[in-house]
Amino acid sequence: MKIVSTNHNEGAFTRWRVWLKALPEKLSAKVVDIVRTTKKVAEDDPRRIIHGIKVGLAMTVVSLFYYFNPLEDNFGDSTIWAVLSVIVVFEFSVGATLGKGLNRVIATFLASFLGVGIHRLATLTGETGQPILLGLFVFLIAAAATFLRFFPQMKARYDYGLLIFTLTFCLISVSKNGNEEVLDMAIERLSTILMGASTAMITCIFICPVWAGDELHNLVATNIEKLGNFLEGFGGEYLRILGDGQSQGDKTFLQGYKSVLNSKSSEESLANFAKWEPHHGRFMFRHPWKQYLVVGVLARQCAYQIEALNGYLNSEIKTPPEIRSKIQEACTKISSESGKVLKELASAIKNLTLPSLADPHIAHSKVAAKNLKALLKTGLWEDSNVLEMIPAATVASLLIDVANCTEKIVEAVHELASLARFKRVQPTRIQAQDQPTILQLEAVQACSSTEEPLYEQAHERKEIILPGTVQSFSGMEEPHHVITIEVSSPVTTKNGNSL
Amino acid sequence: MKIVSTNHNEGAFTRWRVWLKALPEKLSAKVVDIVRTTKKVAEDDPRRIIHGIKVGLAMTVVSLFYYFNPLEDNFGDSTIWAVLSVIVVFEFSVGATLGKGLNRVIATFLASFLGVGIHRLATLTGETGQPILLGLFVFLIAAAATFLRFFPQMKARYDYGLLIFTLTFCLISVSKNGNEEVLDMAIERLSTILMGASTAMITCIFICPVWAGDELHNLVATNIEKLGNFLEGFGGEYLRILGDGQSQGDKTFLQGYKSVLNSKSSEESLANFAKWEPHHGRFMFRHPWKQYLVVGVLARQCAYQIEALNGYLNSEIKTPPEIRSKIQEACTKISSESGKVLKELASAIKNLTLPSLADPHIAHSKVAAKNLKALLKTGLWEDSNVLEMIPAATVASLLIDVANCTEKIVEAVHELASLARFKRVQPTRIQAQDQPTILQLEAVQACSSTEEPLYEQAHERKEIILPGTVQSFSGMEEPHHVITIEVSSPVTTKNGNSL
Repeated sequence: MKIVSTNHNEGAFTRWRVWLKALPEKLSAKVVDIVRTTKKVAEDDPRRIIHGIKVGLAMTVVSLFYYFNPLEDNFGDSTIWAVLSVIVVFEFSVGATLGKGLNRVIATFLASFLGVGIHRLATLTGETGQPILLGLFVFLIAAAATFLRFFPQMKARYDYGLLIFTLTFCLISVSKNGNEEVLDMAIERLSTILMGASTAMITCIFICPVWAGDELHNLVATNIEKLGNFLEGFGGEYLRILGDGQSQGDKTFLQGYKSVLNSKSSEESLANFAKWEPHHGRFMFRHPWKQYLVVGVLARQCAYQIEALNGYLNSEIKTPPEIRSKIQEACTKISSESGKVLKELASAIKNLTLPSLADPHIAHSKVAAKNLKALLKTGLWEDSNVLEMIPAATVASLLIDVANCTEKIVEAVHELASLARFKRVQPTRIQAQDQPTILQLEAVQACSSTEEPLYEQAHERKEIILPGTVQSFSGMEEPHHVITIEVSSPVTTKNGNSL
Repeated sequence: MKIVSTNHNEGAFTRWRVWLKALPEKLSAKVVDIVRTTKKVAEDDPRRIIHGIKVGLAMTVVSLFYYFNPLEDNFGDSTIWAVLSVIVVFEFSVGATLGKGLNRVIATFLASFLGVGIHRLATLTGETGQPILLGLFVFLIAAAATFLRFFPQMKARYDYGLLIFTLTFCLISVSKNGNEEVLDMAIERLSTILMGASTAMITCIFICPVWAGDELHNLVATNIEKLGNFLEGFGGEYLRILGDGQSQGDKTFLQGYKSVLNSKSSEESLANFAKWEPHHGRFMFRHPWKQYLVVGVLARQCAYQIEALNGYLNSEIKTPPEIRSKIQEACTKISSESGKVLKELASAIKNLTLPSLADPHIAHSKVAAKNLKALLKTGLWEDSNVLEMIPAATVASLLIDVANCTEKIVEAVHELASLARFKRVQPTRIQAQDQPTILQLEAVQACSSTEEPLYEQAHERKEIILPGTVQSFSGMEEPHHVITIEVSSPVTTKNGNSL
C-alpha cells in the first residue's frame, strides 16, 4: 500500500511538473492567438481602432467633468447621467449614434413632462391613494411601451426611445419628493442627458465619422460588383471545367457572391441608421435610402440564381466537346455581358453617375440570349446523349434567368439614379482622351442609336457631327442629321478625330 | 384689391372648413389603422401581450420599492439603479434576459473591484496627479473595451457586459469621495443592480417564460417543414402548369419557403441566447444549439435551390405532352419523396425522436433520381424540339440537386439527434393501433430491409415474427428468420395482427 501511495504522489507530482513545464508554451500560444485575432479585427476595418479612441476620448472628457463638477451647485451628483449617456449612446456609425442620442433626449423630455404631471396628479389623492395611482400608471405605461416595441415601424426607429421613456417616467413620477423638487429633478436629468448625448454625438460626427449611409451605399455597390465578378469569371471557368475538368489560378472571385446571400439584415439596419443622418459628403438628408433596399433584394435574387449556377462548376458529368463548342460562345457572351452590366452598375453607384454605360451591355446580353435560344431551337444536339446535355442545358437556362434578373437590377438602379439625381457622365472614363476605349465608343453608339429619355434632360449640350457617318450641312439644303450628344469633355473617336 | 383680399380670406376659410370637415374622417381612419396594426402584432404572437404585462409587473414592483424605500438608511437614492436594471435587462426571451442580467451583474462586480483599486492608487498621487492618472485609465479602459466589442466571440456573448464594465469603472474610479465612501458606493451599486436584474430575471423565468432554445428548435423544424411542403406540392403544381398552364386553389405552401432564405441572423441570435438558458422542458443546459445552425445552413442551401426551382412554376415555355408524360412520374416521385423526407425530419426534430422514418423516403428518392437519370440517358426525347425540352430538363436537374441537398440535411439531423440524444421511436404514430398507416408499415419494412446502425443500440427489444412473410419456427429444424424490431407499444400490420 505504501508503495502505491508513493507512486500515486509521484504520479501527481510528475503531472504537475509536466503541466508547469507546458504552461509557458500554452500561455504563449494563447497570447499569440489573441494577438492574431486582434490584428485581424483591426485589419478588417481599421476604423474600429479609431472608434475605440473616440469613445475613450468622449468618456475621459465627461468623466473629468464629473470629477471636477464645475456646476456642483446646480447638478450635484446627477452628472453621473452624463457619463452614462455617453457610453450607451456612442455607436460605430453616425446614424446609429444620432438615432440613439435623439431618441434618448426626446424620450427623456416627453417622459419628464408626463412624469411631473402624473406626480402632481398623484399628490392630490393623498397618502394612501398616491402609491396605488402611481403603481397603476407605471404598470400601464411600462406594459404599453413594451408592447409598442414589437410594432415593426416602432422597432426600426424608436425602440430605444420607448425604453428610455418608460425608465424616465418611472424615475420621475415615483419619487417621494415634493412637486417643486420633482420638477428640478426632471430638468437636471434632462440637462445632464443632453450634455452626455451631445458629447457623444459631437465626437462621433466631427472625429473621423463613419456614416451609415456611406456604408449602405458601398455595401450595395460592392455586392453588385461581386455578382458581376462571378459572372465575368464564370464563362471562362465553366468552359475550362467542361474541357479538362481542371481549373487553375485564383478563384476567390467565384466565392465573393456568397456574402450577398445573407446581406439582408445588415442592409436593413444600415438603412434605418442612414435615415437619421444629415447632409454629408455626396448625400443629402433625404437621400432615397429605401431604394437601396429594393436594389438589395434584387441583388440577392440574382445571388440565389448564381448559387444554383455555382453548383455546375463542380458538376461531375462531362460535356462532350461537340456540345461544348456549340454553346460555348453564347454562354460566355451572356455571362460576361451580364457581368459587365453589373460591374458598370456598381461603378455608376459608387461614382453617383447615371448607369448609361450598362445599357449597351444589356443589349448585347439580350442578343446573346436570343442567339442561345435559337441555337437550342435548331436541334443541333439531337445526335448526342441527352444525359450529357442536361447540365449544359441547365447552365444555359440559368444564365438566361440571370440575364433577366440583371435587367431588373438595371431598372432598380435607374430608379435609384433618378431619385437620387445621379450625375450624367462618368468623368473618369471619358476624360482619358488619348486612349479612347471601346467603352467610350459604345457609349457614343448607344447615344446615337437608342432613344434613351435620360439624354433629353441634358444639362449641357453640344451639337456634333459624327465624321463619315453624317453629311456635312454647311451650305446645303438637303435634309441633314444633327446628333446631339452631351459630353463633359471632348470625346475622340477611334481614328482620333476630336468630336 | 379689397375684393381679392376678401377672396383670399374666403379661400383660406373654405380650405379650413374642408380640412376641419375631413378631420374626423382622417382621425377615425388613423385610429382604425392603429387598431388593425395592434391586432396584427398581437395575433402574430400573443406572447407579446404577456411580455408587456410581465415588464409592467416587474417595473411596478421595483418602482414601489423605490417609492417606499424600506432600506433608506443603507441605499439612499441609489435604488434608482434597480429600476434602471429591470427595464434594460428585461428581454423577450429567457436566454436574452439571463445573458443581459448576468453580464450586467458580473461586469458591475468586476468593474467595481477594479474601480475601487484604481481610485485608491490615484489618491496616492496627490491633488494634481489624481485627475491625470484617472483620465488616463478611463481613456485606456474605455478604448480597449470598445475595441474588444468588435471581436466576434465577444460581440456574441459579452457585448453588454463590456459596455457596463466601462460605465461602472468610470463611475466608481472617477469619484471625489474618500476611499471608504467609494467602497460603500460600489457595494451599494452592486446590490441595487443585483436586485433589479434578479427581479427581471425571476419575472422572466417564472411567469410564462419564452425560451430562446424552444424558439430556435421550432424555427429550424418549421423551416425544414416549409421546404418539405413546397417539395410535396411542387410535383402536382408543376405538372398542372405543364398541362394547361392554370393552377387553382391555395398556393401559400409554395411561398412558405421564402422566409427560410433570410433566417440566418435570427437563428444565430437565438442560438447565442439559448446558450445562457438552464435546463428547461425537454432541453438540457448543454443542448447542442450549435448543431441547429449547421442544419439551418443546409436548409438555406436547399431553399436557394428551391428558389431557382420556383422560377419554373412561372415559365412561359410550354412543354409538349409527350415529354411531360415521360418525366412526369420520376419528377413527381423525387419531389414528393424529398418533401416527405424533410417533413419527417421536421416532425422528428419537433418530437425529439430519431429521424429513422425519413430513411425509407431517402431511399425512394434515390431510386427515383436514378430512374430519372436513366430515362434521360435513353435519349427518348430525341425527336422533340430541344428548346421546349430545356425547362423540363432544368427542373429535373434541379430536383436531383435538391434530393442531394436533402440527404445532407438528413445527415446533419442525424448528427443533431445523436448529440442531443433524441428518443428512438415516434410514439404518436405507432400508438395509433387501430388504424395502421402506411408509414408504420414502411417503418417496419425499413427495419427489416436496411441495416441501420441505429437499430443496434436499441434500449428495449422484442423478438417478433412478421406473419405471412416469415416461417414459424416452433418445432422446426430448418433455418428460420428472426427479425428484431424495437417497439415502444404493440405494432399492428395492415391486416390487423398484433405483432
